Amino acid sequence: MASTVEGGDTALLPEFPRGPLDAYRARASFSWKELALFTEGEDMLRFKKTIFSALENDPLFARSPGADLSLEKYRELNFLRCKRIFEYDFLSVEDMFKSPLKVPALIQCLGMYDSSLAAKYLLHSLVFGSAVYSSGSERHLTYIQKIFRMEIFGCFALTELSHGSNTKAIRTTAHYDPATEEFIIHSPDFEAAKFWVGNMGKTATHAVVFAKLCVPGDQCHGLHPFIVQIRDPKTLLPMPGVMVGDIGKKLGQNGLDNGFAMFHKVRVPRQSLLNRMGDVTPEGTYVSPFKDVRQRFGVSLGSLSSGRVSIVSLAILNLKLAVAIALRFSATRRQFGPTEEEEIPVLEYPMQQWRLLPYLAAVYALDHFSKSLFLDLVELQRGLASGDRSARQAELGREIHALASASKPLASWTTQQGIQECREACGGHGYLAMNRLGVLRDDNDPNCTYEGDNNILLQQTSNYLLGLLAHQVQDGACFRSPLKSVDFLDACPGILDQKFEVSSVADCLDSAVALAAYKWLVCYLLRETYQKLNQEKRSGSSDFEARNKCQVSHGRPLALAFVELTVVQRFHEHVHQPCVPPSLRAVLGRLSALYALWSLSRHTALLYRAERRCSCPGRRDRSS
Amino acid sequence: MASTVEGGDTALLPEFPRGPLDAYRARASFSWKELALFTEGEDMLRFKKTIFSALENDPLFARSPGADLSLEKYRELNFLRCKRIFEYDFLSVEDMFKSPLKVPALIQCLGMYDSSLAAKYLLHSLVFGSAVYSSGSERHLTYIQKIFRMEIFGCFALTELSHGSNTKAIRTTAHYDPATEEFIIHSPDFEAAKFWVGNMGKTATHAVVFAKLCVPGDQCHGLHPFIVQIRDPKTLLPMPGVMVGDIGKKLGQNGLDNGFAMFHKVRVPRQSLLNRMGDVTPEGTYVSPFKDVRQRFGVSLGSLSSGRVSIVSLAILNLKLAVAIALRFSATRRQFGPTEEEEIPVLEYPMQQWRLLPYLAAVYALDHFSKSLFLDLVELQRGLASGDRSARQAELGREIHALASASKPLASWTTQQGIQECREACGGHGYLAMNRLGVLRDDNDPNCTYEGDNNILLQQTSNYLLGLLAHQVQDGACFRSPLKSVDFLDACPGILDQKFEVSSVADCLDSAVALAAYKWLVCYLLRETYQKLNQEKRSGSSDFEARNKCQVSHGRPLALAFVELTVVQRFHEHVHQPCVPPSLRAVLGRLSALYALWSLSRHTALLYRAERRCSCPGRRDRSS
Repeated sequence: MASTVEGGDTALLPEFPRGPLDAYRARASFSWKELALFTEGEDMLRFKKTIFSALENDPLFARSPGADLSLEKYRELNFLRCKRIFEYDFLSVEDMFKSPLKVPALIQCLGMYDSSLAAKYLLHSLVFGSAVYSSGSERHLTYIQKIFRMEIFGCFALTELSHGSNTKAIRTTAHYDPATEEFIIHSPDFEAAKFWVGNMGKTATHAVVFAKLCVPGDQCHGLHPFIVQIRDPKTLLPMPGVMVGDIGKKLGQNGLDNGFAMFHKVRVPRQSLLNRMGDVTPEGTYVSPFKDVRQRFGVSLGSLSSGRVSIVSLAILNLKLAVAIALRFSATRRQFGPTEEEEIPVLEYPMQQWRLLPYLAAVYALDHFSKSLFLDLVELQRGLASGDRSARQAELGREIHALASASKPLASWTTQQGIQECREACGGHGYLAMNRLGVLRDDNDPNCTYEGDNNILLQQTSNYLLGLLAHQVQDGACFRSPLKSVDFLDACPGILDQKFEVSSVADCLDSAVALAAYKWLVCYLLRETYQKLNQEKRSGSSDFEARNKCQVSHGRPLALAFVELTVVQRFHEHVHQPCVPPSLRAVLGRLSALYALWSLSRHTALLYRAERRCSCPGRRDRSS
Repeated sequence: MASTVEGGDTALLPEFPRGPLDAYRARASFSWKELALFTEGEDMLRFKKTIFSALENDPLFARSPGADLSLEKYRELNFLRCKRIFEYDFLSVEDMFKSPLKVPALIQCLGMYDSSLAAKYLLHSLVFGSAVYSSGSERHLTYIQKIFRMEIFGCFALTELSHGSNTKAIRTTAHYDPATEEFIIHSPDFEAAKFWVGNMGKTATHAVVFAKLCVPGDQCHGLHPFIVQIRDPKTLLPMPGVMVGDIGKKLGQNGLDNGFAMFHKVRVPRQSLLNRMGDVTPEGTYVSPFKDVRQRFGVSLGSLSSGRVSIVSLAILNLKLAVAIALRFSATRRQFGPTEEEEIPVLEYPMQQWRLLPYLAAVYALDHFSKSLFLDLVELQRGLASGDRSARQAELGREIHALASASKPLASWTTQQGIQECREACGGHGYLAMNRLGVLRDDNDPNCTYEGDNNILLQQTSNYLLGLLAHQVQDGACFRSPLKSVDFLDACPGILDQKFEVSSVADCLDSAVALAAYKWLVCYLLRETYQKLNQEKRSGSSDFEARNKCQVSHGRPLALAFVELTVVQRFHEHVHQPCVPPSLRAVLGRLSALYALWSLSRHTALLYRAERRCSCPGRRDRSS
């Protein structure tokens, strides 16, 4: 029986239980149900309710907040829960194609329950599964069924003990032996051990292993993915030649078994190569369908992006939870007051509002961005699946890579700082494990470093923008990208000549104001970074040195300002659509303005300095 | 046999073991042994070596890095270790008086081993013990011996479930009953339960309980401390009427048993009142030696300060460890390089240096400040012990309170952010529990909120400065304080007229430059805050409202800038003393300049805005 949106306990959006928050809820200028419907849509709300109801009613998911679970027990429990999620089969493949946003929604629901569960499920089904599906060919389809039935359990083994960010330096090898038509997977030494691999510690039976592909009498052909069985699915004992184990306790996500593996001349059939990007004939000749290295690179960027786009969503869910916990606590916790007799909720203090409300706005803006970027990624992946090799497809891959490489840092850092602020804003009670802020912070933390350290990823985005500018300067090309995130840069000279005249605080409460300032800032930073880079090169720095010297002062703020602009732009457009219910326009407009101004305010010093350095005399203050 | 400073393994400062850090160590422009001697002094180095050697050689302190210790086991182990520390008797009472800095040094050594151990030891001996000693009288001396022999084990019970910061609202009562000459300690409801009390969860036999003292037929006399037995020392079972237990798992410091207690009409003898501030006669009359409420308040501030000063030291030790771990890792971890063949240590990247080196400088500046503030506190406590009731003593109490209330936030936040940066700068490996950065971060975290939430404490410091300015404006008083931290404010008008002319980067490498800018900034912020506060009051705000409205934009940055100035000032003077060995002057000068400029750079936007608003035309940029 379908539930109704309004109504009793069985409703899609039941009333909150009565309690100390009633007074604040009664003062809301909008209907929270209407906001939920606008933000999620009824279909998505139903989907989420199905998931949460299933978990709530299943004893396997019973919570023991603040419990002192041993590492072994927690990992075991998480594996059983992951298996149960597959049994529930919340999302059919058809549904996934029809409503792709249900994929991140499912992951967010699992992550709201426990980040380790979301990670375990995601790593098996989407990271391992997608790698097999998108890097393999027809001969690998047999694995896909086994993956979704959890007959095999997978992991994605790229990182090694000594190399994470610099994947080119990865040293596991796969030598082809034409005599037996096998690849020999080998780890030359312990520094080349696969390391940090999620699911590998205790439970994975198979791994997608990245290794340097070498054929006899020929040079090596760089990293290629191989599907390698690492454990017996019945006993979970390692396969011959594979040394595999758990890397031990981490700061968080301890339900996930991160592992290491070393391969001692492990022989796998030739067909183990996931051969979409390149293959080896039985005789030992390397062949690749990609003639154009740039095209092949664009395609592989797409698969890197998908991890980063997922992380944006994983980070935001932690911030959603933390902000809700901290704001609810702040609305009920009373401390001090205008008189000794009367204590007021701490949420009434401007200090507490200043600490917490920007993160509430950030949740809305970043959550919207996260969904929109996911849909962009779906477009990219559909093009990939349909064999689209157009220039637009390649450009789309590059644009999404640039956006994902900066939004992953933005989302994970905003969440990291937001949870810390929430935890401190709840005082001592924020430090109690059962209040969950610590777990959220610890579980969010790897979002800042995996799939690329945030600071290093930002360089991808600044390089993308610098590349476009170089293309314009050298070839007179226009700034055009499939998602239009860079198109405004064509108007740079005009934008840099603009003057901002904001005469009142009320004027600033439209995110269009911050948006205009952001465009100015990105134009300014791009120009400055380009000049600084060229200046370094003229002074004799190599490209490597020049980029390193520019990154802290120029490239990093450029990449951050660009992605913040894109987040602000998309949320601004979203909340100013004609379809926004009139009763929600005010609150959504305020959230948009708050996020935009708060983000922009972190660049205040830069705006002042820019104004001083800028050649346009008489420019007015645009930030104070 | 005394060990020598130079020399083999038995030396006071033995050589580091050979390893991958040798190359960097060989490039140092100074001798690390000389720097250690200058920073600590030989006597202190010997003291620390004694402690570390004892722990290293005692199996009870054997480490199992990244181990998955159960909560119960960890708390038990921590208690046994705490007991062992008392048995070692590292620091005699005589030594403590002769070399007071050995007190924080001992705590730092224990904290470097494990924060939970330092906290447990500190809470029993210094917080509980000091409260009995300094708030009690001769009749309580019998407890002191028992405390140092650990015949009784203590805790300090101030905070309640519903009240932490607002101590005036604490609701535990102590009604005096002249018939039996007893106080009746009572918790009116569960919100008045003592909560968060360290050592109370499992192990404390006695508590200093703060309760509202009431005598028959008279009003209540506010909070007073009582020594109350809460458990049987043999069985650790609760005493009749006491409901006591553990509050459960926390984000960190899980070796420490934080607890709660409710008192159901628990009768304690009249002599249980720690009666230095006020006493009750057998007949039930309240008497207090303090006529002047302001004086009494000044004295009680001194005891609050001691907790905050300790936290500064506890925070810094975490940053010391984190910075050492991250810098050593960065010097050996290689990733990318100028060519595909050559990878360079990540420490070579300007980005990594920008992320980590300021925290190295912060360690030195804040550690020095921490020691100097501790010595100021010793002076205050000696005055208190000798019955000094001079105006200077009261002023000293207020000044130390102001410095402690802002340096506790500065040190705990710098450490919080520093550890997070260290953890991220170590990438995935920073997320492994055995690399300790997570434990350091989690164990440091309560430093941000206990003994007063950082943001709330900063208000104490801004209020102190505003009070001095009001005194000057209204009574023409000079800015004079015993430690001279505010004396420069007398020159405010002249300072605000100064122009800064820095013509080269080299000029900025003297911390005197940043110091001058800081003085300007504090003068500016004090004036602006005062004006804003008065403007709010003129617009009809009550004092409470006006302060709340000014705190985010004015009071908070004022308090932080003031304490940063004081830290910079003290470190600047320290490294420019004539006794600094010539070979260390360069490196110490650079550390001082780096910390000063880095701290100042966080106020860049404010400096730009100030310049724009300032009435002095032609002011030059002082920060870019």
